[in-house]
Amino acid sequence: MIELKVELGRRSYPILIGAGLLDQPGALDSFLGKADVMVVTNDVVGPLYLDKLTAVLGDRRVDTVVLPDGEAHKDLATMQTILDRLVDQRYGRDAVLITLGGGVVGDIGGFAAAVYQRGISFVQVPTTLLAQVDSSVGGKTGVNHPGGKNLIGAFHQPLAVIADTNTLDTLSDRDLSAGLAEVVKYGLIADADFFAWLEQNAEQLVARDAEALQYAIRISCEAKAAIVAEDEFEQGRRALLNLGHTYGHAIERCAGYGEWLHGEAVAAGMCMAAEFSATIGRASQEDLDRAKALLARLNLPVAPPPIGVADFLAAMSIDKKVVAGEIRLVLMNGIGDATVTADYSRDEMESLLARQLGA
Amino acid sequence: MIELKVELGRRSYPILIGAGLLDQPGALDSFLGKADVMVVTNDVVGPLYLDKLTAVLGDRRVDTVVLPDGEAHKDLATMQTILDRLVDQRYGRDAVLITLGGGVVGDIGGFAAAVYQRGISFVQVPTTLLAQVDSSVGGKTGVNHPGGKNLIGAFHQPLAVIADTNTLDTLSDRDLSAGLAEVVKYGLIADADFFAWLEQNAEQLVARDAEALQYAIRISCEAKAAIVAEDEFEQGRRALLNLGHTYGHAIERCAGYGEWLHGEAVAAGMCMAAEFSATIGRASQEDLDRAKALLARLNLPVAPPPIGVADFLAAMSIDKKVVAGEIRLVLMNGIGDATVTADYSRDEMESLLARQLGA
Repeated sequence: MIELKVELGRRSYPILIGAGLLDQPGALDSFLGKADVMVVTNDVVGPLYLDKLTAVLGDRRVDTVVLPDGEAHKDLATMQTILDRLVDQRYGRDAVLITLGGGVVGDIGGFAAAVYQRGISFVQVPTTLLAQVDSSVGGKTGVNHPGGKNLIGAFHQPLAVIADTNTLDTLSDRDLSAGLAEVVKYGLIADADFFAWLEQNAEQLVARDAEALQYAIRISCEAKAAIVAEDEFEQGRRALLNLGHTYGHAIERCAGYGEWLHGEAVAAGMCMAAEFSATIGRASQEDLDRAKALLARLNLPVAPPPIGVADFLAAMSIDKKVVAGEIRLVLMNGIGDATVTADYSRDEMESLLARQLGA
Repeated sequence: MIELKVELGRRSYPILIGAGLLDQPGALDSFLGKADVMVVTNDVVGPLYLDKLTAVLGDRRVDTVVLPDGEAHKDLATMQTILDRLVDQRYGRDAVLITLGGGVVGDIGGFAAAVYQRGISFVQVPTTLLAQVDSSVGGKTGVNHPGGKNLIGAFHQPLAVIADTNTLDTLSDRDLSAGLAEVVKYGLIADADFFAWLEQNAEQLVARDAEALQYAIRISCEAKAAIVAEDEFEQGRRALLNLGHTYGHAIERCAGYGEWLHGEAVAAGMCMAAEFSATIGRASQEDLDRAKALLARLNLPVAPPPIGVADFLAAMSIDKKVVAGEIRLVLMNGIGDATVTADYSRDEMESLLARQLGA
């Protein structure tokens, strides 16, 4: 088992990564004490891992909310079903919520924990690669609004993140690839060596080589933990983690939530950001080609679907990175080096965007 | 003008109290900079003070959401109308929300600010006595759930609290008295001298003597600011501010939200808590009598309406002060001295409750 730590003073917490963590009786006792537990999962993950998790929780009081699967249900109405259950079952402020599932379950469940009785504790048990390498770490919780992705939410740090890599065995190939998009992101924004390692190990990752996956998860979590520790509330460096996300959120919204997986949209979005970076001379054509080639080898899309330019721009401009009307983008200076900036020509961005969208 | 400060490190903020603050052009500029502003108010306060506030805001971008008045609308659905407007109008993370109104507007609007884009800044402009002396200070925001009061919310501190005491001129007598209930609370929990001053000035307060009101507001805000600075997230001493609130929330819920004003329910709730304190020998009969007499002179109820004991107990036990199934109550040791405790006989509490509810 690997144990990392997210250093946030009194709110520091561990990330445990290992095969079979959910097979160890009492594995969560040190975080839960005797607390009542509400498990939030979905109708795909629940049937697979709920019994295992319940066994680990011992004889404490446990209740479960099973959400419908998918990004299309990541909204306030779904979140409210969790709050209703917590109220109906008279859960107190000292209860702990556990999210068992992927990024959507973690985001909705974490947000419910953030606002129930003005905040109760929660533990993330991510069961997808995307959740294990990215969304379960760092305390970003929330839901979508019809007008944009993750527009409603809170920063609420978990008590612990428990990543049992055995849960990846049941993940579809498509979901595995979607998770790898966020892994590539860490290489692109800050770690050229890791990017090179990914180029050397792309086929092993797609083939689910256990050792390669575990290494990729560890490096990704280390990178995320370091950035979050430095900038918890995204007032600076943390925004780098949004490489490809302004474009990607617009793809997700315009295609209809759930049509594109988040990781798929991020992959295409990173290619769009990299292409813009190359077009304005920030990054080289070679860097762009390497990024696209790696993502393609990981079975990820490297271009957006057909979307009207006006719709796409409208979706981009409600993104959380918009300040004083300017769309701040994460642009690449090269592999392993990115910058958050609004210092680019809007005309150039839009004219490339028209070509990127096939208009 | 009086300026107090809530000391919370980097999140410290001022409370400005004075007659005519909303008549001073640019009065909010030092808090707002050039930010876009979304004003949240209701259909009673808006017609009275929105023009005044808009004039103070100068020529920046200002939009307004007007909520229906009253506690009955303090729910997630109403909060969502604010979020919808923020999204539709493309407000960015750098926008500032201003709440113009009483406790309900401040709580809903503050909660919307807490969760829009994971948190934007907001300024409280309280226009009721209750909001000026209590709810606008300290960062508690939230909405009711059908199952209980304020069960959904967040701690989110404002940038500033601007209490223009001229706005009290349009307040109904009933609302003025409701605000005085929270003023009495500060005397009961921690300040016997202030309680004695209130006994000497009860009729002046009810008659809206400007000097007496301003003094009561200042002392109340000082007390609240000191307690919040000491215990922002209510892990200890801040819970004293809930004197009468566990009983009071149950009254509000069982009577139907909006039937009893919050302050009225708190007044009756404080009498119930004081009576229980006297019954078990914590406080004296004389202290109980003084508390009831003062509240009655302020035209406040000193007993609950007829409610079934089982319903009342069910409403009490979903209160946020319930830990490990125990209802922690704020009990009085005497005028100016209170304690948060679960160390009482549940049987004695319930048997007195039956008598208090007229069962």
